Amino acid sequence: MSARPVTIPQRVGRALGAARDVGADAVLAADPATVTWLTGHAPAPRHASPFAMAPLAVVTGDGRPTLLVSDDEPVDETVVFGDVRAYEGYSMGELDPAGALRRAIAELAGGGRVATEPSALPAILAGDLDWVDAGTALSRARTIKDPDELELLRTAAGLCDAGQRRLREAVGPGITELELHAAVEAAVHAAAGEPVGIVASLLSGPRTALIGGPPSARRLEDDDIVMYDLAVSYRGYWGDSCVTLALGTAPPGLRARHRAACAALDDARGRVRPGLRAGDLDAAIRAFGDFAHHAGHGLGTSYHEMPRIVPGADCALLPGMVIALEPGSYDEREGLRVEQVVAVTETGCDLLSAHALDL
Amino acid sequence: MSARPVTIPQRVGRALGAARDVGADAVLAADPATVTWLTGHAPAPRHASPFAMAPLAVVTGDGRPTLLVSDDEPVDETVVFGDVRAYEGYSMGELDPAGALRRAIAELAGGGRVATEPSALPAILAGDLDWVDAGTALSRARTIKDPDELELLRTAAGLCDAGQRRLREAVGPGITELELHAAVEAAVHAAAGEPVGIVASLLSGPRTALIGGPPSARRLEDDDIVMYDLAVSYRGYWGDSCVTLALGTAPPGLRARHRAACAALDDARGRVRPGLRAGDLDAAIRAFGDFAHHAGHGLGTSYHEMPRIVPGADCALLPGMVIALEPGSYDEREGLRVEQVVAVTETGCDLLSAHALDL
Repeated sequence: MSARPVTIPQRVGRALGAARDVGADAVLAADPATVTWLTGHAPAPRHASPFAMAPLAVVTGDGRPTLLVSDDEPVDETVVFGDVRAYEGYSMGELDPAGALRRAIAELAGGGRVATEPSALPAILAGDLDWVDAGTALSRARTIKDPDELELLRTAAGLCDAGQRRLREAVGPGITELELHAAVEAAVHAAAGEPVGIVASLLSGPRTALIGGPPSARRLEDDDIVMYDLAVSYRGYWGDSCVTLALGTAPPGLRARHRAACAALDDARGRVRPGLRAGDLDAAIRAFGDFAHHAGHGLGTSYHEMPRIVPGADCALLPGMVIALEPGSYDEREGLRVEQVVAVTETGCDLLSAHALDL
Repeated sequence: MSARPVTIPQRVGRALGAARDVGADAVLAADPATVTWLTGHAPAPRHASPFAMAPLAVVTGDGRPTLLVSDDEPVDETVVFGDVRAYEGYSMGELDPAGALRRAIAELAGGGRVATEPSALPAILAGDLDWVDAGTALSRARTIKDPDELELLRTAAGLCDAGQRRLREAVGPGITELELHAAVEAAVHAAAGEPVGIVASLLSGPRTALIGGPPSARRLEDDDIVMYDLAVSYRGYWGDSCVTLALGTAPPGLRARHRAACAALDDARGRVRPGLRAGDLDAAIRAFGDFAHHAGHGLGTSYHEMPRIVPGADCALLPGMVIALEPGSYDEREGLRVEQVVAVTETGCDLLSAHALDL
């Protein structure tokens, strides 16, 4: 958990390039994932004030990002690139976060055209602006990770490993899905030494046929299988992981399906290299057995992002992309899935996940 | 945790009245708190898909709400008022959530003027619309709770009680703030029997002077004080609570400050009744000792909402409002706060909180 050098990273220049491609002089990032990507600031999980608005980032022509944030939102200045401009988001008097943000944006953008993300930008901030939609271009720019991002993604994958380790210790007949997930959450926070973001799907027994869903009050039984998909964000960067395990002796059919999913994962890792089309990777994974969800997805400051590994996807893999691969197998009675995260290198890929996949 | 009768509650009519006051024929709710308030739908905590957009609610002239939601977001139809219209938010093909939402809104609103919340409505949805800002009017309408809301708020306050009970069992020298919070989280989820939303501030020792902040890796010491502010949402409705406790023998000065904060709380509960101005309640609380944050706030589908109990606030309390009262006392070395939730009745107030306040 080393300190990061707070120089302005390459990706800020790429974002500005995307803005210029659509005739804009500046970037106004509104998607929380893009704000983190451009500034290094990750809002403390579950700590946004309902009286304030979400943070924004502006990158102007000089290539310097400015984080616009409520003054009651904790900001770790040692990890933020560029400038921080705090507005009054909490006081005992009248609050006008939208007015404060409008003034700051107008001053930074100087009346010029801004490239923004209108799926996230609040309408109250858009009215005065000359804006153009650069949402897709910015999502594409986010797919290539800088070295500091790869380090954070590796840490996040390690936190998923820690959570999956705890799952195997705590799992057993009699525990509820909610209790099991709480045990994992505690272990992940302890391993991180700071609060992290956690999104998890925990299904047991016949509920595994649902593919995904939050943990319930269901109590595990003797011969259950348990499918646990755990995503963890460390300083805004996400790891992802999934295992399926059996409490008793798994029947031969289930074991065969689990072997096929693991083989699909091994085979896919062997194929990943620059130039491979996402759709071809998807087809290779499904050759081991098809299933009703994506075969994988990008990971970064959001837990599902481009490139999507789906049938027919045209996007070619490039060095610096980080993707999760997650073959599954489901029928009406039960389901299973395994998932690992890899970083695309110049010649292949590095495996970031280290959790056990055993059934 | 009884099932709710799915009739359309009074508040939906009040929202439509607020829209008519600003010359609109329909409500387009975009603030997640307003969407929950109008439809009963509370998104599963931490389960939004980054590929979809946040849910919206439309109320048209016939007084019937429609929830617009991604088809991969779990919706419990047994608690939803009105209609649910799901759009394709997850598939293996191209996704266009904004297009789907624009079409649905246009069809429901029929080209008429809509009263909306532009601090939350994404700009990509606002372009085609004839909209007017009704954010403040809808926030005001949300202050008065219907009977079904009071029941959910009572359950949420009870979950805060369960969490504060667990805090007192688990607290002691040697445990870290993160471990202590994890123990409480597990207890709250177990008490609810389903995943809930949790926002907590946990500070110990000299960190209590910070007033609020997420738990850290700090390990508790022999004579520490611990300040724990715990908010829990059950099906979208929030409870709130705060205690300060001492691990060793508290010095007389601290005990006196704690007694004053508890006396401020007792006195405030005795004053709360319809017609009392929020600013006068604030002044009564601060007469026991001033502090640098609000003396209280409304609670509902967000954990901080109107009425704000702050100096000079003009808003008069009304039956059906639910407010948290939270006197504190801070200096440079340490701080303390106590907090309870009350529902304003015709003649006074009902205390919803039942957690111990002892130092």
